[in-house]
Amino acid sequence: MTTNEEALLKHEEWKGKLDVCSKAPVDSAHALSIAYTPGVAEPCRKIAKDPDLAYKYTIKQNTILVVSDGSAVLGLGNIGPKAAMPVMEGKAVLFKEFGGVNAVPICLDTQDPDEIVKAVTWLAPGYGGVNLEDISAPRCFEIEERLKATLDIPVFHDDQHGTAIVVLAALINSLKIVDKKPGDCKVVVSGAGAAGVAITKLMMNYGFKNVILCNSKGIVSKGAKGLNWMQEKMAEVTNPENISGSLADALKGADIFIGVSAPGIVTKDMVRSMNSDAILFAMANPDPEILPSDAKEAGARIVGTGRSDFPNQVNNVIAFPGIFKGALEGRAPQITEEMKMAAALAIASMVPEDKLSEEYVIPAPFMPGIADRVAEEIKKLI
Amino acid sequence: MTTNEEALLKHEEWKGKLDVCSKAPVDSAHALSIAYTPGVAEPCRKIAKDPDLAYKYTIKQNTILVVSDGSAVLGLGNIGPKAAMPVMEGKAVLFKEFGGVNAVPICLDTQDPDEIVKAVTWLAPGYGGVNLEDISAPRCFEIEERLKATLDIPVFHDDQHGTAIVVLAALINSLKIVDKKPGDCKVVVSGAGAAGVAITKLMMNYGFKNVILCNSKGIVSKGAKGLNWMQEKMAEVTNPENISGSLADALKGADIFIGVSAPGIVTKDMVRSMNSDAILFAMANPDPEILPSDAKEAGARIVGTGRSDFPNQVNNVIAFPGIFKGALEGRAPQITEEMKMAAALAIASMVPEDKLSEEYVIPAPFMPGIADRVAEEIKKLI
Repeated sequence: MTTNEEALLKHEEWKGKLDVCSKAPVDSAHALSIAYTPGVAEPCRKIAKDPDLAYKYTIKQNTILVVSDGSAVLGLGNIGPKAAMPVMEGKAVLFKEFGGVNAVPICLDTQDPDEIVKAVTWLAPGYGGVNLEDISAPRCFEIEERLKATLDIPVFHDDQHGTAIVVLAALINSLKIVDKKPGDCKVVVSGAGAAGVAITKLMMNYGFKNVILCNSKGIVSKGAKGLNWMQEKMAEVTNPENISGSLADALKGADIFIGVSAPGIVTKDMVRSMNSDAILFAMANPDPEILPSDAKEAGARIVGTGRSDFPNQVNNVIAFPGIFKGALEGRAPQITEEMKMAAALAIASMVPEDKLSEEYVIPAPFMPGIADRVAEEIKKLI
Repeated sequence: MTTNEEALLKHEEWKGKLDVCSKAPVDSAHALSIAYTPGVAEPCRKIAKDPDLAYKYTIKQNTILVVSDGSAVLGLGNIGPKAAMPVMEGKAVLFKEFGGVNAVPICLDTQDPDEIVKAVTWLAPGYGGVNLEDISAPRCFEIEERLKATLDIPVFHDDQHGTAIVVLAALINSLKIVDKKPGDCKVVVSGAGAAGVAITKLMMNYGFKNVILCNSKGIVSKGAKGLNWMQEKMAEVTNPENISGSLADALKGADIFIGVSAPGIVTKDMVRSMNSDAILFAMANPDPEILPSDAKEAGARIVGTGRSDFPNQVNNVIAFPGIFKGALEGRAPQITEEMKMAAALAIASMVPEDKLSEEYVIPAPFMPGIADRVAEEIKKLI
């Protein structure tokens, strides 16, 4: 049976991947009077007087929303809210199993940014956080920024920041191996959507100075045509020499390649044109920008992908469960840039120094204790 | 410890009354590839091609939303979305424990009917039904009607229809005892909000002809002042002799009193003015319109309340879990009037003929098999 066949069969058997379970017994008249009327009126009254007590008496303390509009789901594109549900249910499963965080999947039947902002704003009071998911760029940037500006609970677009955190963690460890400093590296980020932009920003916050962003047409530079507003903004702060040209042009002499773009677009020749001790994280789905074997053959020193069947799997699940676990436990009103940085450092530190190698720069998703470690670092910054 | 104290303590201990649990294992790379990427893409693709398959592969098949705006919560009034959460969580607990239905509590941070309709419309694709809850009248009528007109999943305002169904069930059995026919009875319904209006409508559909609705100012009649649009509409179809006056005036010669209004407003003298074999369902919370002992003393034959410490508890939990269980299992696009009637008859029939008595006209909430029985009747009508 192929993975697809098995997945289809299992999804049918599961009848949905989530159950909403009760923690309150209602098996007697007395139990009912405590969990429901008349007893339930008392926590209601307390919260009405002091809304902050919602964190004490309701699911707000440990439950978030996973919100998508189905506009950019996995590699499948704009498949709409119904078809996006299996992914959002899966995300909720990961939140629960890896971080102990309750998550409710919400797939909205609108793709208008104003309406998405309204919907999430109306839903927010009952919940402790919002994980935005699979919303297409550049709409996702605006939606996240507006929600962060108005809501008093953490809002986090995982396609952006989860990816950026895990990539930075892998890079921090990779630079130890090749003994380079971030400020000295030339970096090429292929893919100028949600992930590419967020990776670039976090890398620059960490100390990378020469980052060149590429979209499907080539290098993002000041004056380049067909850029969206976010790419235009990025052209102002990246690509310090304002070079133009193709991805191949960008890669000449580069130390690091980060791919969140399309399968197979990096050739062996491009890798050969990179600097010595080249680092490549080729994370296109389902197939990477270049296969690890090809990249290695062409001289790359460290290669990672998004896949579990190659070494150095760069997978968001290393980050997001711990981030929300920490944010909820510490009741953070926001996930700050500082917290993202701390999460990246925490994840990097989970690879023991004596085990660090070209094939092991990032912990495996199933390594025990990751979410707790990330959560602890987040909580220190609240 | 008082009920209030215990409820507060328990709500703190529970840390929210709901957990979102995973049915899909993600404890190995293979498991992860089935429940999440890359395998999850396959059900997504199938649903994108045929949206109806959402019922096969997602939680839509067995999960509903419990939606409130916090405008009319229990007897507490307009306490807003955060303070309403304990009640909506409790409702979700009851759905799960009594009907096996997964329910997600949603308390919206808007009380504008247009915005509530929009929000629920945007949320609907991922879920199999919508239970509206604790939304004030007459807004609740408009909101429910508009959602029913546009959504392809069942929308059910439990404060209206759940209450109406259970009251009708209790009346069907009560009339057997007093040997009266619905068409011959004079009925007074005290309370012209969500519940009172829905009870009146369902009773009239069942065959009651002379129903007099009262609000806090007195009898709802054509030309009466201060009626809202729904009460004006009700004045057209109820109160066939168009009498006016007080609740006391209405009760003279009445066979049945249904109270969904305010504690203590019915006196012994009013009961004495009713017809012989009077039936009273005094369901005001937390204290009934008249205490059963007082009503009996004044000559009433059958008395019920909303409370578990008196006989004949009229409680919505007898109805709503089974109604949604049936609607989801049979994939009903709507809860029709026919289904409500069938549910009332099914509930009435749960009291065995040989046990039927003045003190036992409605099954207790914990009677086994109620939800299944109601669900079966609903499914026959899909």
